[in-house]
Amino acid sequence: MNAERRNLLVEYTPLPDDLDERLRAQLTFLIEVDRLKTVLRQSPLAAADRRENDAEHSWHLAMMVTVLAEHADEPIDLGRTIELVLLHDLVEIYAGDTPLYDSAAGVDQQDRECAAADAIFGLLPVDQARHMRSLWDEFEERRTPEARFAKAMDRLQPLLLNWMARGGTWRTPGVLADDVRARKAVIGEASSSLWAAGRRLIDEGERRGWARSAAPEA
Amino acid sequence: MNAERRNLLVEYTPLPDDLDERLRAQLTFLIEVDRLKTVLRQSPLAAADRRENDAEHSWHLAMMVTVLAEHADEPIDLGRTIELVLLHDLVEIYAGDTPLYDSAAGVDQQDRECAAADAIFGLLPVDQARHMRSLWDEFEERRTPEARFAKAMDRLQPLLLNWMARGGTWRTPGVLADDVRARKAVIGEASSSLWAAGRRLIDEGERRGWARSAAPEA
Repeated sequence: MNAERRNLLVEYTPLPDDLDERLRAQLTFLIEVDRLKTVLRQSPLAAADRRENDAEHSWHLAMMVTVLAEHADEPIDLGRTIELVLLHDLVEIYAGDTPLYDSAAGVDQQDRECAAADAIFGLLPVDQARHMRSLWDEFEERRTPEARFAKAMDRLQPLLLNWMARGGTWRTPGVLADDVRARKAVIGEASSSLWAAGRRLIDEGERRGWARSAAPEA
Repeated sequence: MNAERRNLLVEYTPLPDDLDERLRAQLTFLIEVDRLKTVLRQSPLAAADRRENDAEHSWHLAMMVTVLAEHADEPIDLGRTIELVLLHDLVEIYAGDTPLYDSAAGVDQQDRECAAADAIFGLLPVDQARHMRSLWDEFEERRTPEARFAKAMDRLQPLLLNWMARGGTWRTPGVLADDVRARKAVIGEASSSLWAAGRRLIDEGERRGWARSAAPEA
């Protein structure tokens, strides 16, 4: 997780020496985050036969915030909520994606992601690094209505993709419909109506055999 | 461009009948826009050996707005500028990407994209369809500081990717460094400092032979 020992993308084609130092730091960060497009998630796309990457996922969450904000149980600042979802996965550029149903990978997830946050946000000018880090902390801590809604979108979006895929990661070995409900319940902390809809999709998925019930099948 | 004759993604796995009608329209739209992840652009990624898609591009623009907003020559509303870049390419789901240096494809671009806007935004509840359409019109017309800055990001981002690729689409047959400068000059309508940096990259690219000069080479 040491930024000094990591090759930055910009080093492959260094920027001209005479660029302003602050702008150079900003462009270095903006080039480095191109890597988010290469971090693969578990979710299958609805529109193509491949897995989704983090940049596509983050864009999709932002669209969901703009369209679904009215379902928030508490008033939310739209712009800040969008900023939260846009940057919430940047740490995965260095820490990788941690699948929702992989308990082992979740053990040191926080340590890995904190180190990654220092490395990626640290490319920015200090004031902007602090600002982005505080937004990422806000997302992770879920103490504001904006962070709770952002997290709800982060859980609802793959649920929609799994529905479209008629199972998707719900079919992960060892995962039951009750596990899905437990991991997705956080949607209800931000929106009772969206959680009702999400639960409806999981229940219907279980009924159709796209997610396994606890009881052994007859 | 007739929405009635087009198969929507959601039709492959219809949503349960008993969802609220407004939420059903919103989810139908949010599932359909998954297609943006399959619209390929000309730009090569910096982080991988493949072309970029529109969803990745839109996410990248939003990150650029948050980091580079301070370079705007006029004050801009950050949240609205981000909304503009998030949705500016949605019409390409049905109209396709029109390469910047393809004059022939540009001829009927506006007609194709207006019809596509009717189709894609028309999936939303009427009030939200109107709102998104007005944001897309704002982006296209470039009459507000926010729209000019959003357009500047739309031109600066592939410029950065072409720099990283040591040419990229600058190497398109028939394209000269002067053509690149002409297409990118719109950056200067939003930010003199970013346009100075962009021009610096194009000039240096021309000097290194990554973009062709007008004069025949000796």
